[in-house]
Amino acid sequence: MQKIVECVPNFSEGKNISVIKKIAAAGKIKGVKILDIEWDKSHNRSLVTVVGSPSFVFDSVFSMIKIATKLINMEKHVGEHPRIGATDVVPFIPVSGISIKECVALSRKLGKKVAKELKIPVYLYESSATKKERVNLADVRKGQYEGLKKEIQTNPQRKPDFGLAKMHPTAGAIVIGARKFLVAYNVNLNTKNIEIAKKIAHKIREKNGGLKAVKALGFLVNGYAQISMNLVDYEQTNFDKVYEEIEKEAVIMKVKIKNSEIYGMIPLSSVVSAIKETFKAEGFKEDQILEKRLYE
Amino acid sequence: MQKIVECVPNFSEGKNISVIKKIAAAGKIKGVKILDIEWDKSHNRSLVTVVGSPSFVFDSVFSMIKIATKLINMEKHVGEHPRIGATDVVPFIPVSGISIKECVALSRKLGKKVAKELKIPVYLYESSATKKERVNLADVRKGQYEGLKKEIQTNPQRKPDFGLAKMHPTAGAIVIGARKFLVAYNVNLNTKNIEIAKKIAHKIREKNGGLKAVKALGFLVNGYAQISMNLVDYEQTNFDKVYEEIEKEAVIMKVKIKNSEIYGMIPLSSVVSAIKETFKAEGFKEDQILEKRLYE
Repeated sequence: MQKIVECVPNFSEGKNISVIKKIAAAGKIKGVKILDIEWDKSHNRSLVTVVGSPSFVFDSVFSMIKIATKLINMEKHVGEHPRIGATDVVPFIPVSGISIKECVALSRKLGKKVAKELKIPVYLYESSATKKERVNLADVRKGQYEGLKKEIQTNPQRKPDFGLAKMHPTAGAIVIGARKFLVAYNVNLNTKNIEIAKKIAHKIREKNGGLKAVKALGFLVNGYAQISMNLVDYEQTNFDKVYEEIEKEAVIMKVKIKNSEIYGMIPLSSVVSAIKETFKAEGFKEDQILEKRLYE
Repeated sequence: MQKIVECVPNFSEGKNISVIKKIAAAGKIKGVKILDIEWDKSHNRSLVTVVGSPSFVFDSVFSMIKIATKLINMEKHVGEHPRIGATDVVPFIPVSGISIKECVALSRKLGKKVAKELKIPVYLYESSATKKERVNLADVRKGQYEGLKKEIQTNPQRKPDFGLAKMHPTAGAIVIGARKFLVAYNVNLNTKNIEIAKKIAHKIREKNGGLKAVKALGFLVNGYAQISMNLVDYEQTNFDKVYEEIEKEAVIMKVKIKNSEIYGMIPLSSVVSAIKETFKAEGFKEDQILEKRLYE
């Protein structure tokens, strides 16, 4: 099976479109596809979504970081969103035929190269973190660019994973890591009673002893009670399982599921896994999907 | 959405591998993928499965027919499988973003070109048929090569749709048309009682007033009663609907579904449609599947 990885580098530029375009253009190399470019003026921040074979995505992302290092000056950066560097965060995300472990290795390799060739200190986060205190992005980014600049040389706890304990004079520092693909999934109930959605969300989320790797909140959306979820590891709990559990709870609460929404992108393996489970089709494989074979 | 069509030309050569390879090689052009090459010695027949954009598939298939016309001599052909020509049958099958109507147009275009440039009489069948009596392949192929050769010039009912009413001296005639994608789907019950599978098959198949576009038979496979189905138009009845119906019947018969099998290839749209129905996810689209976007 072909290995496919996604990477979504975040850059501290959300106003100057020509800079954002130059960064994305640097990432547009053979073997990858730029799926999306987003920016936000008040955050003064942009995201580029790149997908493809691991080695090509690696090269694409390094090119973008290199250009961003030249074009973005953190000494002049103002924006609402927390940030510590010109290229702020770089998550590698497994999509198909690749493990989170391989994505961790990829993130470490990129970290080393960035530190060595671009002289930027690198922190590893999420699955790539080397310490508990660096798993969460918010912890790594504490004090932001300005705060880290003061602390990095003196506080040993803030020593980077790669590179010297010294900010790059204009590009600051970078957080690199690997995390699982996040599936955004909502279930709407045929009731206006938001309390029911909140109760079900409470019941099914991992935090309260519910389903593994499920984050859930109750909302009122377009006049219907909605359970809005992030499935942070669909290999542990996929959307079919979530639907089934919500259906059970709905019966107890005497309401019905109106509909559900898969929000944004989803890996083929999540869809195939839902088919396997729902129709007891254990032998079903991604390779049986004609379109997949077409492009191998 | 990118248009994808499948075509599975059948050739009257199943023994001489070098001939089969030459035919398939002629079809291997830019813009198409040869998914499969199969042959059978006793049938003395081979199939090549080619997929891609309509115009490329058209060119690929014409190249194969041209070579087969040169390399296969029907005057010397012996085999168990019914046939009327060197290239015997050419079905175009919609996979994605293309209608059956467009496939009919494609088949007619190929028919004209084959008749004009290769001097082979062409019959249109299935959705491309110009008369009721030509919808079924068996009817078009009546009498096979030897029988048609005698009748074609004298019986007006056997006048081809394209070309002169005269067999090609070595390549005979060709049947070309468009048909829907066939999904092979089996459901196994946790019983050895084949009669239950037969009863359920009888109940759900279109022939006996059941589900549209569903053919079903009951078998005993590996010690379990199996309902073996061909879904000849999954846009009318998809596998999720079939599973649901069988589940209802199984409850009545006091048995359970052991598992189910999607056999062979399946278009992504069938899988996406099953997800939409099962999880009431009306808004879900093929384009949300990351791998699909990757290769657009």
